[in-house]
Amino acid sequence: MSKRTVTKGTAKDEQSAEREARQPAEREARQPVEAIRAAAFAQFAERGYPVVTVRDIMKACGLTQGALYNHFKSKDELLHDIITSTQAELERVCQQAVAGAGDDPRAKLAAFVRVYVMRHCRLRVEALVANRELSWLDGPRVADIRRSRRAIRDILVAVLSEGVTRGLFNPPQVDGRRDLKSVAMALLDQCTHVSMWYSPGKGMSEEQMARLYAEMALRSVGAKPQ
Amino acid sequence: MSKRTVTKGTAKDEQSAEREARQPAEREARQPVEAIRAAAFAQFAERGYPVVTVRDIMKACGLTQGALYNHFKSKDELLHDIITSTQAELERVCQQAVAGAGDDPRAKLAAFVRVYVMRHCRLRVEALVANRELSWLDGPRVADIRRSRRAIRDILVAVLSEGVTRGLFNPPQVDGRRDLKSVAMALLDQCTHVSMWYSPGKGMSEEQMARLYAEMALRSVGAKPQ
Repeated sequence: MSKRTVTKGTAKDEQSAEREARQPAEREARQPVEAIRAAAFAQFAERGYPVVTVRDIMKACGLTQGALYNHFKSKDELLHDIITSTQAELERVCQQAVAGAGDDPRAKLAAFVRVYVMRHCRLRVEALVANRELSWLDGPRVADIRRSRRAIRDILVAVLSEGVTRGLFNPPQVDGRRDLKSVAMALLDQCTHVSMWYSPGKGMSEEQMARLYAEMALRSVGAKPQ
Repeated sequence: MSKRTVTKGTAKDEQSAEREARQPAEREARQPVEAIRAAAFAQFAERGYPVVTVRDIMKACGLTQGALYNHFKSKDELLHDIITSTQAELERVCQQAVAGAGDDPRAKLAAFVRVYVMRHCRLRVEALVANRELSWLDGPRVADIRRSRRAIRDILVAVLSEGVTRGLFNPPQVDGRRDLKSVAMALLDQCTHVSMWYSPGKGMSEEQMARLYAEMALRSVGAKPQ
């Protein structure tokens, strides 16, 4: 986890001068909340949600304890905020990857797996917190995350289903039945948990991981050679 | 999670009478420790290790708080004990499956995936605790579990490697290189996390799940048709 820093822009014309004039207030409003989020991810990942206090998080980002409450009602709301935002972004990039991959379900599946794996190789701390610490949230908040997870699974099920209909995929049948939800879950589990062991700079790059996983996924579902 | 109960045997001859005479003491020594383990798994899974107290666990199995210390030095040692025992058993069944599958690496891979998936469909509470709560253990205890996990991964790597050498597997290459450790991790992640969503009685049986996953694994590594 690295904390995001906001670099100050240089005013070159009236328009950017105007932007510049607006920036400080925005920066003040934005910077602490991002620093709090980054510190929360790092602290929850390293030490676990229940033992981390609001004081620990605020100390880690050099802010007073009270400053948290300008942005979040509670530690619980902070956990929900950071998991929700990383989850929503994951859903968005998955949708976008499939939408931008053209007409062929094989290209859609490969694009989905690529972005999903790249993201989980890169945002390991976020993935760890989103997966391991989720159960500390209360019922309605967990339901919110689960809805997004189901939406991601359903993007994948739709791609698989289209591939089967068009005779381009032939996923395994068990007792004469195809269970595309289970196949999708198997692929998602495989791609999610790279975040638990992938180590940048050792072995494969993120890009190579993405290609390996895309190829394994295409094979698992019996994609016809292109 | 169901607590194991020990049923009392009936003495039918001298030998079994002798056994019977030995049994009560053994039973007293064994039964509480198993009840404690079962309660610990259930409590840690439901509420998370840090918030569960020794009192909670002992209350859940109807024993006094002090009775824990006849068997375990601390809550930490109890967590280590239950994760270690489920992990050791997993390692044992994986070794056994491969050793008993005959000579063909395809049969070995299928046997490995089958037992691994069956176990993770069945022992969901144990898998949840072993995966989510592991990080509460101290360094040497975590190292112990990681050693066993690597041993399991290496059983799989050896099967894949044998299959490649014998021309029976053709796992994806990335930039001309095969990374069998990453392929093995991908398969293990896929099989481990059925424990997080598989729901007995809905959809596929454990046996059907095992067959689906074995087939996906064989396809991913490019197994030649038998």
